Amino acid sequence: MKVTLQQVLPNEIEKRSFQIIEEEMGQLQLDPEVAPIVKRVIHTTADFDYLRTLTFSPGAVAKGIAALREGASILTDTQMARSGINKAALAKVGGEALCFMSDPDVAQAAKEKGTTRATACMDKAAALGGNLIIAVGNAPTALVRLHQLMEEGKIAPRLIIGVPVGFVNVVESKELILSSSVPFIVARGRKGGSNVAAAICNALLYLATGRAL
Amino acid sequence: MKVTLQQVLPNEIEKRSFQIIEEEMGQLQLDPEVAPIVKRVIHTTADFDYLRTLTFSPGAVAKGIAALREGASILTDTQMARSGINKAALAKVGGEALCFMSDPDVAQAAKEKGTTRATACMDKAAALGGNLIIAVGNAPTALVRLHQLMEEGKIAPRLIIGVPVGFVNVVESKELILSSSVPFIVARGRKGGSNVAAAICNALLYLATGRAL
Repeated sequence: MKVTLQQVLPNEIEKRSFQIIEEEMGQLQLDPEVAPIVKRVIHTTADFDYLRTLTFSPGAVAKGIAALREGASILTDTQMARSGINKAALAKVGGEALCFMSDPDVAQAAKEKGTTRATACMDKAAALGGNLIIAVGNAPTALVRLHQLMEEGKIAPRLIIGVPVGFVNVVESKELILSSSVPFIVARGRKGGSNVAAAICNALLYLATGRAL
Repeated sequence: MKVTLQQVLPNEIEKRSFQIIEEEMGQLQLDPEVAPIVKRVIHTTADFDYLRTLTFSPGAVAKGIAALREGASILTDTQMARSGINKAALAKVGGEALCFMSDPDVAQAAKEKGTTRATACMDKAAALGGNLIIAVGNAPTALVRLHQLMEEGKIAPRLIIGVPVGFVNVVESKELILSSSVPFIVARGRKGGSNVAAAICNALLYLATGRAL
C-alpha cells in the first residue's frame, strides 16, 4: 500500500494544522476574542463539535489572561491535565500548575466523607485559597462541589474551565456553572476531557505571554 | 435555574457510565474481544465515532494482554499519555510507563537531525530495545519513524497503539501502521489523543490483571 506523506517541517506542523482548521471552518466567523481558544481545542481533538459546544461567559478570555498575568496558578482535577499544561509558559507569568488528586489528605478526606477525591480536592482548594484558575477536565463531582463552595462564599476562582467528559452528571454539572456568575469557559454536553482542559489553559497562556498561535 | 443531579455513589459512577454506553449502543454487537477497549475509549471521550474508527489487527487484544503479563513496558509519545496510564495496574504485571519526550538527549538528537522530538524518541526506543508496547496518542511523526524502524528490522514492538490526533499526516501515519504486519490498535481518521492512548492501555491492563470493567 502506497501512503504519501505531506512534507512539512517539524516547526511548521502546528501552523499548518491551524490553517487546515481555518480552511475547514469556511465562512464561519468566530468572535476574535474566543477564536484562539476554540481553534486550539479543535487542534487538540480534531473534533469540530467544539465550534458549537464551547461557551464563554462575557469577557472570560480577557479575565483568564488578566488572572494569569497576575500570577494565578492553575488547579486541575487530574494529573493528566496538569501534565498537558505548558509549564514554561506558565512559569513566565509566575504561575504554577497544581493538582491535589494524589495527595494522601485528599484520599483520606474522600474516604471519611464518602465523596470522590475530586470533591475533596475542591475542599482543599477552598481551604488553601489563593489566586486560582480551576480547570476541570474529568470529574463532574469537582464542578458540583465547586459550585456549592462558591454559593457558600468559600471560594472565588478567577475563571472556571469546565470541560469534564462522560455520562453521569457531566451535562448537569456544566449547567450549574453556566447558570452561575463566575467567569467560565464550558464545553456544553458530554464531551470534554483532560486534553481539552489543558488545551484551553495553553491557549490562554499563549495569549497571556504573546506567543504566536 | 434548577439542575437535578443523578444520585450515584462515587464507586458506582464508572459502572453506571458503562451501562449508559451499552444502552446507547442498542442492538450493536461488538466482537467480545475488542468490546472492553472500545467501550473504555467511549467512556474517556463520550465520542461514539470510535465505534467505527477503532481498528484491531487479528488477536491484537490477546497479544497486548500477553505482552503485559510478560512484563512489557509501555512507551508513550507524550508525558500526558504516560500520566494517564494506571501505574498501579501496570506495576502489578511488572511493567513501567516510559516517555522520552523530556529527555535532553532526545531534544539534542531532534535538533541535530532536524526531526521532531517524537521521531527522536522512537530512535531512542530502537536503540534501547526491550519488551515494549508503544502507544502514540499525539505525534504522527512518531508512527512514521516507528514504521520505518520496523521495516529496517530495528524495532519490534509487541503492540502498537496508534491513535495520534490532528491534521497533518495523522491519517497517513495510521495507514502506514494499518498496512503493516505489526499487531496494532489504530483509530482511523483524524481523531485520537493522549487520553485515548491512555484509555486503551488501561483497558488492556484491566483485562491483563482481571480488574472488573
